[in-house]
Order: sequence, then C-alpha cells, then structure tokens
Amino acid sequence: MAKLTLAIDAMGGDRGPSIVVAALIRALQSFPDVEFILTGDEPRLQALFKREGKNLKAPERARVHFRHTSQIVQMDDKPSQCLRHKTDSSMRVAIDLVADGEAHGVVSAGNTGALMAIAYLRLKALPGVLRPALVAAIPNEQGGQSFLLDLGANPGCDSDSLFQFGVMGSVLAQELHDIPTPRVALLNMGTEDIKGPDVVKQAAVLLGQSSHVAYQGFIEGSDLFSGHADVMVCDGFTGNIALKSCEGMARMVYDHFKRSLKSHWLSRALVWFLYRRQRKAWSWLNPDQYNGASLIGLRGVVVKSHGNASANAFFSAIEHAIAEAASDLPARIHDRVEQVLSEQHT
Amino acid sequence: MAKLTLAIDAMGGDRGPSIVVAALIRALQSFPDVEFILTGDEPRLQALFKREGKNLKAPERARVHFRHTSQIVQMDDKPSQCLRHKTDSSMRVAIDLVADGEAHGVVSAGNTGALMAIAYLRLKALPGVLRPALVAAIPNEQGGQSFLLDLGANPGCDSDSLFQFGVMGSVLAQELHDIPTPRVALLNMGTEDIKGPDVVKQAAVLLGQSSHVAYQGFIEGSDLFSGHADVMVCDGFTGNIALKSCEGMARMVYDHFKRSLKSHWLSRALVWFLYRRQRKAWSWLNPDQYNGASLIGLRGVVVKSHGNASANAFFSAIEHAIAEAASDLPARIHDRVEQVLSEQHT
Repeated sequence: MAKLTLAIDAMGGDRGPSIVVAALIRALQSFPDVEFILTGDEPRLQALFKREGKNLKAPERARVHFRHTSQIVQMDDKPSQCLRHKTDSSMRVAIDLVADGEAHGVVSAGNTGALMAIAYLRLKALPGVLRPALVAAIPNEQGGQSFLLDLGANPGCDSDSLFQFGVMGSVLAQELHDIPTPRVALLNMGTEDIKGPDVVKQAAVLLGQSSHVAYQGFIEGSDLFSGHADVMVCDGFTGNIALKSCEGMARMVYDHFKRSLKSHWLSRALVWFLYRRQRKAWSWLNPDQYNGASLIGLRGVVVKSHGNASANAFFSAIEHAIAEAASDLPARIHDRVEQVLSEQHT
Repeated sequence: MAKLTLAIDAMGGDRGPSIVVAALIRALQSFPDVEFILTGDEPRLQALFKREGKNLKAPERARVHFRHTSQIVQMDDKPSQCLRHKTDSSMRVAIDLVADGEAHGVVSAGNTGALMAIAYLRLKALPGVLRPALVAAIPNEQGGQSFLLDLGANPGCDSDSLFQFGVMGSVLAQELHDIPTPRVALLNMGTEDIKGPDVVKQAAVLLGQSSHVAYQGFIEGSDLFSGHADVMVCDGFTGNIALKSCEGMARMVYDHFKRSLKSHWLSRALVWFLYRRQRKAWSWLNPDQYNGASLIGLRGVVVKSHGNASANAFFSAIEHAIAEAASDLPARIHDRVEQVLSEQHT
C-alpha cells in the first residue's frame, strides 16, 4: 500500500452504516490522496454508497473499496466472545486489514471493549509499551485542546504505565497538535505532593525525573478544562468516570435549560437570538469536533468514534485517524518509548 | 448538655469569620432550641457578633458561647502537623468539644485533610465501621437529591469499605431525607457485570447479598445526576475526581456564557429577563443549598463546609449538622452496622 489507506468498520455504532457512508463521502472530497476500505454488509453498503455518492466524481468513487463480512459486533457483546466467535465481523476484519498491512489505520463506532480487545490481540503493543491507552481531546478554557488518558483501556494502572501514558500523550500532542513542549500533569485528588494514592505519587516521581516529559505536577478534576496542562494522565477507571461525569453534568444543564425555556414564546425567541449570536463563540465547545478517541501504543492507528456519532462527528474521527496515520504516530511513539527505556537503563 | 449544642470553627475557610457570624445569626433565628459554641479569636468574634447581631433578641444572643483559641489551621497546613502542633486551633478545639461531650456536632470550613485527620483521631470510628466516609448531596434531574460517597476521606478502598459506605449512605438517606428504601448503586466504568476493577465487582457481590441495602447495580459517571440511584458509592479518589470534574465543567460553561454575553446590550437584557423567569426553575441547582459534606461513621457529627462558602452556604452546612445531630445519625449508623455485622456472622 503506497497510498495512505484507512479501514472503516461500517456496521458499528448505534446509527448504522448511513452515518458512516455520509462521513466517507465528505472524507473522499476532503482527502484526495486517501483510499478507504469499508467492511460490512457489502450489498447494503454498495447500495447506500451508490445512492448517497451520486454527485462524487469518478476518481473519488474509485478510492472506495468494500470488504464483505458476515457478522456484526453488537454493543452489548462481550469482548472475549467477539474474539472467539466474531472473526468475520466488520470490526474484526477492519482491524485485520491493519494487522495484515493492507491499511494504515482503522475507525470504528462499535463496542469499545471489543474494539480494544481485538486491536490489542491483532495489532499488539509496540515494543516496550506496557499497555495501550485510550486518549481523547477535550476543549479547554484557553480555546485550545487538552488530552486526557487513559479513558478506559486499563481500569487499574501501575506507576510505570501512568508514566508511559505521559510519554505517549506528549508525542501525540507534539505530532498532531504542534505543541512543541506539551505540559504533562497527573490527575489527582489534590495538588499537594502528599495527596493521593501511592501509585499516583510514584508516577509523579518517574515523570519528574524524565528528560522526555515536561511534567507540571498534579491537577484536580476542577482543572480538567482549565488548560493548565496539555496532557492529563490517570488510570482508565478514573478517566472514564471523570469524562462521563462531565458528560452527565453538561447534559443535565442543557436539558434543564431547554425544558425550562419552552414555557414562554419570548424565551424561545430569545434562545433563537442568543443561539445565532453565540454560535461562533461556542463552536469551540461543539462536541462533534472532539469525536474520536485514539487507542495509542499499538502497532497501528485505531480510532474509536462515539457510538451515536452524527455524520459530522464520524468525519472528525476519520480526520483523526488520517492525521495519525499520515504522521505515522505509532512509529513516533515507538521512537520515544525506546529513548525513555534507554535513559532508564543507563 | 441537654439541649442540642453545635460547635462551630469560626476561623476556617477562605472568607474568614464574618461569613460564619452572619450564618450563625440566621441559625439563631431559625433554630430556637439550639446552642452554639464558636471557637476562635474571641475578642474578634465578640466584636463581630456585637456589631452584626444587634437586632437579635436577648434569648437568641444568650444561646451563643465563645471558646478562645490561639491558633488557626491554614488551608495548606499538613494534617500530620496540625495533629501535633495545632492543638489550640479553632478547628481542634471545636472537635474536642464534641469528643468531650460538650457539643453534639461540629461545622468547619477549614482544611479538609486536617479536619478529617483530627476528627478521626479525636472522635474515633464507630464500633464495626472500617473507615469513615465523606458524603455530600448533589441535585438530580428528578428534582431530588442523591448522595455520593466517598469524596476523599479514603483514596483507596477495599470492597468491605465500599459495602459499608453503601450501608452508611442508606441510613443517611433514610434518616435525613425520608427515603424509605434508598436505591444504592456503585459508580463504575460500565453497567455490565464484567466491567471495572475487582474491588468494585467484589463490593457489588457484598451489596447484592445484603438484606440491609436496596442494591441496584453499577452506574456510570454520566448517571451521576440522573437520579437513577439515591446513594452512589465509590472510593475517595474516584468521588473526588468525579465531583471536581463536574465543578470544572459547570464553571467553564458558566464563565463562557457570562463572557460571551457581555458583548451586546440586548444579550445583557435577555439574560436579565431569563434570570428573572428561570430563577425558580433553577433554584434546585443553587450550589448554596448543597453546601456541607458530612464525615460519617464517627462517634459524632462532623460537617465540612466549602472553603469559600457564602453566609447562606455556611448556613446550609449548619442546617445539615443540626439535622444529623437531632436524628442522632451516629447512633443510627451504629445500629445498622451492628445488624449488618451480625448478619454476616450468622
């Protein structure tokens, strides 16, 4: 594969392949040099693509390939059973394409646990990487982005893994977001040295000693959006709880706002006015542009889209995967981990 | 002490004793049967009280007592040093009043770590209680309240402690909020049985087996405000991160909203209109009324106010402490823990 090729699991997610195909059409127009392989129910995908893509030019259409699969990983399937019994699922085949060198990366909106398990089995961790990590960008109050990891690939972590997450997160922020010296912080229950579990305190020592990370110290949950750090590190249990708690808070405020304004025509008019006026100021908070969590530390690019992503959001996930594949993020992470390991051994 | 007596650390918190005295004056008027002992710099407190309380009636004034102390626990003091060297601090003396039977409970807005350490040392855990827990009420989308614990008293917990948190949280919800059968859930990174760390899965087994808890299963961070559970249990590290992450999210949205509306006179007018119209609908979200985290599982009532609480918010913390003392919450928790232990031993 000379050209950059992306495998896309077209059957994952709650909203089905029509979302994926709509995002793909946008991607074909935005990335003229990228090839795409869609895995899934080929007749259905072909029909969808023919109908939705009729305005595409012939060279754009020619960059799409299909790989028929007979199975689908359901959202509530157990990862262990997917590994054994769903070897012809759209998700598995998409990952296999990366493992077999036919694609540089994969995007899926399917079952997160299954995706992590299959990717780990088929792509393997990079040499020296203890555990892959799930990382996502979140908006910060400075108008930029910060990266939070791990978001759930590793429920519990030792301090060496947390240290490596800081290293891998730094490489991601440098390579993909042009932050020359990403500030790395550990998520903790206080900013004082004595606070928190031993494993977090030990990770602080490792990060502080390394010349490969610009370690800033501890931050608290209240600083998640402050932009005080570019890379924020915690174990997968903590990261999952933190991010989902914020989602819950945001949804509650939004729903309540919407509901409480319905009562009065003037309220509704005001909201319309505010929306038009504020749209631009709030666009940096648009969840669509933050869709796409990357599983890093593996020998290949793996991007997880939110299960109920819109076509725009799924397109963001495709963009992430292309950026990671184009900069060969796995090789960059491999290089840095090797440097870190050689520093530790001297 | 026949009458209900509350000790108040008047020097804790970021905003000084004037907040405490203002809250106290409201409490004297609201709770005609409660006595208060203020610990701190007596001349300063007397002067403040004389000035601010001049409209109080004589019997109201007579229910305030002062206990002079020469030291103050600072917000950045280490708990271990407070234990050893700040034995005449307003915080320590207020807790001592409870330990020595002169007060039924204590309220402080001071250093959380020091408050937990001193309270644990002086008041001791109830018989059978493995670890005290810090618990707070949070608003839910049903318009009610849910309780989250632990919020930071115990960075890491074994499954037995998590189980006891569920028991203690149930008693709190029953005694103070008239919820006959509080629904208890464990905070986890997924709702399926196979998800999460072993310690959480083991706690699920213990909660499911007990006849003293209405266990509902796992909930995710996104359900923190859904009202799907009345009592939500996790270790102190997780609870601290979850709650502070939500604070961070709420502050970001609020600040951004405020800032982006400043630009246009019509926006400002609209906000004024919306505020007037929505005030009642949003009052259930008012952070003041949720001020006051309780340290439960000890032989006495301990309520922690937010460090930068307003007088209204500090009043809420006083209200919590009075309600807990009036229902003798420590005795209720003791009874339940004893029942649970006897069930386990038979």
